Amino acid sequence: MNTIIIQQVWFNGKICDVLIEDKRIGMIADSIEMEADKVIDGANKALIPGFANAHAHSAMTLFRGLGEDISLMKWLHEYIWPYEARLDKEMVYWGVKLACVEMIKSGITACNDMYWHIPGCVQAMEEMGLRSVQSYVWIDFSKKERAEAHKIKLVKMHRESESWSDLTGFSLGPHAVYSVSADSLQWIAAYAREHGLMLHIHLAESQTEYDDSIKNWGVTPTRYLYDLGVLSSNVVAAHAVWLSPEDIQILGDHNVTVVHNPNSNLKLASGYKFKYNELCDAGVRVCLGTDGCASSNNLDMIEAMKHAALLQKAWRRDPAAMPLDELMALSSLHGYEAMGVRGGKVEVGWLADLVLIDLHQHAFVPNHNFYANLIYAANGSAVDTVICNGRILMEQRKIDSEAQILNMAQQMAEKLIKKP
Amino acid sequence: MNTIIIQQVWFNGKICDVLIEDKRIGMIADSIEMEADKVIDGANKALIPGFANAHAHSAMTLFRGLGEDISLMKWLHEYIWPYEARLDKEMVYWGVKLACVEMIKSGITACNDMYWHIPGCVQAMEEMGLRSVQSYVWIDFSKKERAEAHKIKLVKMHRESESWSDLTGFSLGPHAVYSVSADSLQWIAAYAREHGLMLHIHLAESQTEYDDSIKNWGVTPTRYLYDLGVLSSNVVAAHAVWLSPEDIQILGDHNVTVVHNPNSNLKLASGYKFKYNELCDAGVRVCLGTDGCASSNNLDMIEAMKHAALLQKAWRRDPAAMPLDELMALSSLHGYEAMGVRGGKVEVGWLADLVLIDLHQHAFVPNHNFYANLIYAANGSAVDTVICNGRILMEQRKIDSEAQILNMAQQMAEKLIKKP
Repeated sequence: MNTIIIQQVWFNGKICDVLIEDKRIGMIADSIEMEADKVIDGANKALIPGFANAHAHSAMTLFRGLGEDISLMKWLHEYIWPYEARLDKEMVYWGVKLACVEMIKSGITACNDMYWHIPGCVQAMEEMGLRSVQSYVWIDFSKKERAEAHKIKLVKMHRESESWSDLTGFSLGPHAVYSVSADSLQWIAAYAREHGLMLHIHLAESQTEYDDSIKNWGVTPTRYLYDLGVLSSNVVAAHAVWLSPEDIQILGDHNVTVVHNPNSNLKLASGYKFKYNELCDAGVRVCLGTDGCASSNNLDMIEAMKHAALLQKAWRRDPAAMPLDELMALSSLHGYEAMGVRGGKVEVGWLADLVLIDLHQHAFVPNHNFYANLIYAANGSAVDTVICNGRILMEQRKIDSEAQILNMAQQMAEKLIKKP
Repeated sequence: MNTIIIQQVWFNGKICDVLIEDKRIGMIADSIEMEADKVIDGANKALIPGFANAHAHSAMTLFRGLGEDISLMKWLHEYIWPYEARLDKEMVYWGVKLACVEMIKSGITACNDMYWHIPGCVQAMEEMGLRSVQSYVWIDFSKKERAEAHKIKLVKMHRESESWSDLTGFSLGPHAVYSVSADSLQWIAAYAREHGLMLHIHLAESQTEYDDSIKNWGVTPTRYLYDLGVLSSNVVAAHAVWLSPEDIQILGDHNVTVVHNPNSNLKLASGYKFKYNELCDAGVRVCLGTDGCASSNNLDMIEAMKHAALLQKAWRRDPAAMPLDELMALSSLHGYEAMGVRGGKVEVGWLADLVLIDLHQHAFVPNHNFYANLIYAANGSAVDTVICNGRILMEQRKIDSEAQILNMAQQMAEKLIKKP
């Protein structure tokens, strides 16, 4: 059995030793006197659970900085869709490798991902040692033949997913109500229920989506999914910015998980009045995500927490909104729960997906309040060490093969934008 | 004459050499073949002008993380004011030293500061090599004897400021319309005009200030200052969130500089609809500031740029609002102009207040758009080297005496919150 001891680390106000046995946390005590395969000095470091990025399109790191300061439709038609059509498995592989470097460097240990060329995504994530759920993207624009082709490919990919390691899960990713037919949504929901899979969908992201839904079907996007029988506790809905009070009740009643992506919502001007309090009151599990680098430009969950909280305080005109002691659960435990993985908590028996924060830097001085310093003063660069599934992925901010990955990702991005 | 050459650095899309002669930029060319006292390898680095933090209370680093998630009034009465009353020159000195470490580490080379115990501030800033303007804070709550005492101390401090180095300027800091009497505001404005000094004031920060002004004087805070004859081109107004169309016109007509502090405005829920487009249209010079660490928690100008732009896009529902090519001027040139210093531009003859960004990291891969990567993907941790007034303050993120400063600032903060 592989063992790691983290010695004398700050955790929730106390200094302690933490023993990792294989993939799990084996013991937390004032002092652990035993031999271990590896000892990490925790002095001047704080221990937190790894972050779960609950909505991402990892390979879109290759699009970082393409199409700035333009409207959503121009952005989609002139940049995102034409370039996405050119992607191949190799590009996606290196794009995800770059995303993994970035996620590890900012303390992310699990990622709820949704993108094309899944085999490239899985290979990259597993090589880098990150936990992920990979959603099969389904867009059919109500074309029957596209839907039929998806069914075959989806079942094939589901079968293939049985060969993936325990780090990687498979899920279904119908893109959105406006890009997937009602029949397909019902078929996907039935398939997900039959096989116990997560259904990961963009929901009520923009006002256009909301208004169009009412125009086309007479109901909101959320109510539309409910009427189709899609909503249940396996559904993870990304964005959910445009919600009626009835929508919020529906999401709560059906134990839907909602992922808030503040950066992307702000940058694309999709809407900023995320109904955090109301969703919590209705019993909805709220998580945080970075979305893809095409719209949020980075994969920093500390930044996502900061922006989520600042935004709630601002638009509600209440400095007490979204308080500090709720933010860590949003960025960690809730994401793990949504992914069906026992992580996101520093507790004996839970998965050893752990992060050490370097306290010896200005953001953590003075030490009046660790979580305030972490979220409001620091950023992803405060992460020193990352452990996932009991394996050390980064120590002292060093990741194996980082230079090669940056180089290859750069090459793939150049290939992507080169005129054909 | 002291000379530095930065070799083969990326600057605005080209690779070039930059010669620094004493305090100024001496030459920018494809290649500079001469001996220099110091050569900096610019490979894999980008050159930008240093940032000007146009509104800060540096010593408030000591308050970082005190009083989170509470209302403004509770925050002021239970935390800020009681603790400020206990500050002494030594505490302020170490608080500012910590702020300098943080500002240098995030690429700030000039700071428009406003705080108590100015001699402590000046000593710390000059030792660290940072450029600053120090505003004499004036709060009298319309008490005659307090105003008289301020007059004497202000004149004394102004005289003392003649002994400061060329790095440090002196200015006048009447706190706000609600904390300084009309007589005092007029006296201060006259003194500033007579001596060619900047007048640095908080203006229209909260709706309470705006509403109270109308209640008390029948006019908005901006119109009130105008009626008192205070507004002219030497005035730097921090916040300016609550402005009527007439206010915006007044600020433009009198060439007032406005400092936007997005972090602080969001976190204290002061208001988020900063009228950027309207102020620009009226001809107002807009700068960016971090405000103090009590309300914004850090001093990262890259974060300030990011938040300013995200906020404009969001509340205007326009992803093209506050575009990339305007952001660098807001965070650099405009702040320098407000401080009356010839910096904030990489150009021959201008002050050598320069920053090198480390491009060899994930935030800058791929390199589709450097400024998008810098502002939206990176944060202050991307800063590698900082030069101010021709002197190297940081190289490869190393600052002399950093460890001692973190340690002393921690001690001072503990002393500050210790029950008397």
